[in-house]
Amino acid sequence: MSSPIPFTSVNITDKFWSARLKTSRDVTINTCIQKCYETGRIANFARAAELDSTPHEGRFYNDSDVYKLLEGIAYTLHTNFDAELEKRADEIIDLIAAAQEEDGYINTYFQLVRPWDKWTDMNLHEMYCGGHLIEAGIAYQQATGKDKLLNVGIRFANHICSIFGPGKRHWVPGHQEIELALIKLYLHTGYEKYLDLAMFLLGERGHGYGIKEGDPKKWNKEYYQDTCPIEFSDNVMGHAVRGVYMYSAIADVIRLKGHELYEKALQRLWKSMVTRNYYITGGIGQSAHNEGFTADYDLPNLSYCETCAAIAMVYWNARMCWLYNDAKYMDVVERSMYNNALSGVSLSGDKFFYDNPLESDGTHHRSPWFECSCCPTQLARFIPSIGGYIYAVDNDALIVNLYVNSHVEYGDYGISVKTDYPYDGKVTLMLEKAPTNGILKLRIPGWCKGTKIKGYNFNIEKGYAVINGVCSGMTVEIEFEMPVKSNHAIEYVTENRGFVALSRGPLVYCFEQKDNPIAVDKLIIPDNAIFIINEAPALLGGTYTIEIYNGNKKLATAIPYCLWNNREACAMKVWVKEQITADELYK
Amino acid sequence: MSSPIPFTSVNITDKFWSARLKTSRDVTINTCIQKCYETGRIANFARAAELDSTPHEGRFYNDSDVYKLLEGIAYTLHTNFDAELEKRADEIIDLIAAAQEEDGYINTYFQLVRPWDKWTDMNLHEMYCGGHLIEAGIAYQQATGKDKLLNVGIRFANHICSIFGPGKRHWVPGHQEIELALIKLYLHTGYEKYLDLAMFLLGERGHGYGIKEGDPKKWNKEYYQDTCPIEFSDNVMGHAVRGVYMYSAIADVIRLKGHELYEKALQRLWKSMVTRNYYITGGIGQSAHNEGFTADYDLPNLSYCETCAAIAMVYWNARMCWLYNDAKYMDVVERSMYNNALSGVSLSGDKFFYDNPLESDGTHHRSPWFECSCCPTQLARFIPSIGGYIYAVDNDALIVNLYVNSHVEYGDYGISVKTDYPYDGKVTLMLEKAPTNGILKLRIPGWCKGTKIKGYNFNIEKGYAVINGVCSGMTVEIEFEMPVKSNHAIEYVTENRGFVALSRGPLVYCFEQKDNPIAVDKLIIPDNAIFIINEAPALLGGTYTIEIYNGNKKLATAIPYCLWNNREACAMKVWVKEQITADELYK
Repeated sequence: MSSPIPFTSVNITDKFWSARLKTSRDVTINTCIQKCYETGRIANFARAAELDSTPHEGRFYNDSDVYKLLEGIAYTLHTNFDAELEKRADEIIDLIAAAQEEDGYINTYFQLVRPWDKWTDMNLHEMYCGGHLIEAGIAYQQATGKDKLLNVGIRFANHICSIFGPGKRHWVPGHQEIELALIKLYLHTGYEKYLDLAMFLLGERGHGYGIKEGDPKKWNKEYYQDTCPIEFSDNVMGHAVRGVYMYSAIADVIRLKGHELYEKALQRLWKSMVTRNYYITGGIGQSAHNEGFTADYDLPNLSYCETCAAIAMVYWNARMCWLYNDAKYMDVVERSMYNNALSGVSLSGDKFFYDNPLESDGTHHRSPWFECSCCPTQLARFIPSIGGYIYAVDNDALIVNLYVNSHVEYGDYGISVKTDYPYDGKVTLMLEKAPTNGILKLRIPGWCKGTKIKGYNFNIEKGYAVINGVCSGMTVEIEFEMPVKSNHAIEYVTENRGFVALSRGPLVYCFEQKDNPIAVDKLIIPDNAIFIINEAPALLGGTYTIEIYNGNKKLATAIPYCLWNNREACAMKVWVKEQITADELYK
Repeated sequence: MSSPIPFTSVNITDKFWSARLKTSRDVTINTCIQKCYETGRIANFARAAELDSTPHEGRFYNDSDVYKLLEGIAYTLHTNFDAELEKRADEIIDLIAAAQEEDGYINTYFQLVRPWDKWTDMNLHEMYCGGHLIEAGIAYQQATGKDKLLNVGIRFANHICSIFGPGKRHWVPGHQEIELALIKLYLHTGYEKYLDLAMFLLGERGHGYGIKEGDPKKWNKEYYQDTCPIEFSDNVMGHAVRGVYMYSAIADVIRLKGHELYEKALQRLWKSMVTRNYYITGGIGQSAHNEGFTADYDLPNLSYCETCAAIAMVYWNARMCWLYNDAKYMDVVERSMYNNALSGVSLSGDKFFYDNPLESDGTHHRSPWFECSCCPTQLARFIPSIGGYIYAVDNDALIVNLYVNSHVEYGDYGISVKTDYPYDGKVTLMLEKAPTNGILKLRIPGWCKGTKIKGYNFNIEKGYAVINGVCSGMTVEIEFEMPVKSNHAIEYVTENRGFVALSRGPLVYCFEQKDNPIAVDKLIIPDNAIFIINEAPALLGGTYTIEIYNGNKKLATAIPYCLWNNREACAMKVWVKEQITADELYK
C-alpha cells in the first residue's frame, strides 16, 4: 500500500499541464461560478434559506454542481491563493449554511419543491448531493482553514447517520457518492461512524432494499448496481459513474478494513471493465440510454464515454494503484486522464463535452454548460487536483506514478522531475531529498516497449522499476521509447475489425477533417505507412502531430484526441480503416 | 539514380563498426592469409607457375578465395596503409601473375589437374574464379596504384572474350560472378566489350545452352537459375549466392543500358525474395541441400542462410537502392548487413559461420576455416568496404542511407554524422560542405514507426526525408524512436506460428542459453512482457541487451543476433513461443 503525495505539495511546471491548470483557474472556475449563478443553482440555496422567494430552478441534483465547484475552488485556492475567489466562495458557502435545516437536512430541491417527500425515493440523489457537500467541505477546510462548509457537511452526515444504519432504515443510494464522502469524512475527523455508515450503505446493495417488490422499473436494479450484493458482482453494469464511484469506495474499504470478498469482487469487476468494456481513450459507458454499460465488447465508436466517468476511472484506478502498488492500475489512470477526461474541456477552458465519442460527423461540440451539468463541475474539481496522482510514498519509498515536469517538497522527500512527457519519453529525476530507505520506484508505463534506465541497478515489481540505494543529490535518468503505435482492438470488438487507432506514449491520436484532405471516414492507413512525429508549437496550444505518409504522399495528419474540437467544427475519427499490405513477411 | 560515396572517402569512427573494422584489419585478413598458405591455396599458384612441383590441393574453385582475400587486402590498404601487408599481397600477386598462361587462361585446378578439360564444364567455376580475379585486380590497382593483378585479370577477361560471345561459343556460367566483374572492368577501363560480354552471358541463360539434352542432372537448371531466360523469371530459385550475384549484375545492366524486361523481372524476383523467401535476420537460402531456395514461405529456423548469401543481398539491394533511389532496398541492405552478414564472423575476427541458423542446440559453432571457405574471404572483402553503403549522391543531392558515426570528405561534400546507432535512434548530421543544390536526403528506416526531424521542412520521397535548402555549417537532427519490436511472421510461415522474434532498430535479437535460466527452447514470452533496454558495456565488446520481465520475474535476456556464439557453446533461439494474454482489449 502506498499513499499519494497530495497535489498541494506538488508544484507542476509542465508544458502539457501548466497551461491547463492556469486555464482551469482563470477560466473554468469562473465560468462554472457564473453558470451556477445564471442557472439558479446558487439562488436555490438562497431560496431554501428563505432569502429569495422565487421558485426552485433546475433538476433535483443541481446542488451537487455548486458543491463540486466549491471543491474545485478549494483545490485552486490551495495551490494559488486568490482572495477575490475565496470571497466569492465564502458568499456561496454562507448561502449553503443558511439553507441547511435545523436537523442537518439540506437539499434545495426537496426543501423547496417536495418537502413532504424527503427520503422517499432513493433515486433522487439526496445522499449524492450530500456526498459532494461533504467532499467540498473537507477540501475547503483544508485549503482555507475555514470550517463553515465542512460543518454543514458534518451536520448532514450526522443527519443521515441518525436515520439510516443497522437497526434503522434501509437505503440503497441511487447514485453512489455518499460512500466515498463518508470515508473521506472518517479519515478527516477520525469518527468511525462515518466509515461504518459507508460500509453499511455498500452492504445494503443487492438485498432488495432498493427497489420495492413489483416496481415496474425493475431495470433500475442494474442501472444502479443493485442486482446482487457487491461480493457476488462479476460484471460492470448500469450507469458508469455510479458504478465506478462505488468501486472507488470499495477500494477504500478494502484499504481501511480489509475485505476478502470485496477484493475478489473488485478484481472481477476491474477485469470486466478493462478487458471487455473499456475504450482506447480510457472512456467507459458505451451507451447514452443508461449513461453506462451495455454488453461486453459492445464498443461502438459513436460512444457515450461521459467525461465524469473517465474522471471516475482515475479516482478508482488511482486507489487501486495505491492499494496494490501495481502500476497496471496507473496505466488506466493515465489513459483515462490524458485522453477522455482531458477531452472533456476545451483549451479555452469554458466549453465542455458531456459525452466523448470516438468519432463525429462534425456535429458534436463542446457546450459552455448543460441542464445536467455534472461534467463541467467535475472538471472544475478534477483538473486542479491532477498533481495528486504523480507521486506516492510506501514505507518511506518514493514512487513516481506519472511523469510530469514538477517539483515536490513533502516531508522527508524532495524531488524535481524534468521531462517533456507525454510528447517525449526522456525523464530526468533529481533527488534533492532522497527517501530515507533509499528506494525509488519508477512506473514503467504499460504502453512502453523499451525502457532505458541509465547507470542504476533495479528490480521490477508489479510494473515499477525499483532502484535501491538512491541518495540525496543523485540524478536518475529514465527513457521510454515512444514510437507511434498502431493499435488494434481484439476481434470481439466487431465494430473495429480491420481498423487501426494511433497512439504515442499515453496519448491516443485522432484525425480531424480540418487537417486532412481526404474525408476522415474514407481514410485508409496502410500498415507500412511512414509516421513522422512533428512538433507543432503553434497548433492547439503547442502539440506534436503525427504526419502519415503513404509512399511519397502525405496521407493524413493526426492530433491528440484530447485536443479535438478546439477549432472550427469538423468530422473526427479515432479508428480508421487499415490497409494490410502483403509486402512484408514479418510484422 | 544515385552513386555511392566510396568507402575510401568515409572515415568511420563508430562504436558499433570501428572495432569490427579494426579486427578485420588486424585479425581476419591475417587469418585468411595464413589459411590460404596452410591449405595450399597460394601454393597452387606457385605450382601452376611451375615453381613448386607438389600436386594441386583442394577444390576446383579455391583460387577464388585468394582473389577475394586480395580484394579485402586492397580495401584495407586503401583506408589503412600497411607496408608489410602490401608486401605480403605483392608476393601472392607475383605468384598469380606467374601462374597465368600465355593466352591469359588462369585456373590452377584445371592447369594442374585436368588441363585437357578447360572450358568443358560450365559448373566448374573457371569464370567464377576469373570474376574474383578481376574484382581483386581493380581493387588492388585503386588501392596501391599497382596494376600487376589487374593486368592478369584483363588478360583473363580478354581470353574469355576471345572464346565466348555472339558468333563464338555459348556458355552459361555455373556460378554467376563473372558478369559483375566484367561490368566493373568496363566501368574501370571504359572498354564496352566487357559490358557486352557480361550482357551476353546474362542473355545465355534459359536457352538450353547450360545443360546438354538428356543430362540426368536436370535439377541443376534450377540450381543455377537456368530454367528460363532472365526476362521470364518470376521466382527466386536454386543456389542463393549464384542467384543474387546475377540479380546484382542485372541491376548493373539496367543502370548502365536500361532494359525494361529485366527491370520487370528483377522487380518480380525482389518481391519473391523479400516477401516469400527472406529470414528476419536478412538471411536467404533456406536449405543446405542446394545452398539455396526451396519453396515460398518454407523458412525453417534450422536454416542455412549462408554468410555469403547475406552479403550478396547487400550487394544486390545496395545496387537497387542506388538505381531507384528507394529506401526500401536499403532496409534490406541494413537487415542483412547488421544481422546475418555480421553474424558470419566472430568478435575475435578469426572464426566464421558458413551457415547462420536462427536456432541452435549448442552444437553449431564458427570455424577458423572451411574446405569450401568462401565465407571467410567474403567477410575479408566485405567488412572493410561497409563504408561504401553509408552515403550516396544524386544530382548533387547528398543521401544518407545508413547511420554510422563517420566523417566524409568527398568532392564538394563534407559531412560529419554523430550517432550511437544501431543502439540509439538519435542522429546529428553536421554539414561541413553542404550539397551545392542544398538537398539532403535522409533515409527513414522501414523499421521506424516514429521519426522526428527537428526544425526543418521536408518531403518524403520513396522512404527518404528530403530536406531542401541546407547550407554549409548547418546541423540537422533526426531521431528514430527505437522500442523493442515483437515481430511475427505472416501466417504462411507455419514454423513460426505462435512465435515471436524481438528486434530493436535494425538489430534482430536472440536468446543464448548462457544468459537465460530457462531452457531457450522452453522459453515463452508473454505479449505483455516488460522490455528493458540495458546497456552492457562489458558484454560482447559492448552492447545493449533486452531484459524481459514477466511480472516481477526476470524471464529472459536477449542479445543481438550478430553477437551470438561468441562465448562458450550453448543453445540459441531467435523465434520463441509467445503467450497471448487475454488481458488487453487493444494491442
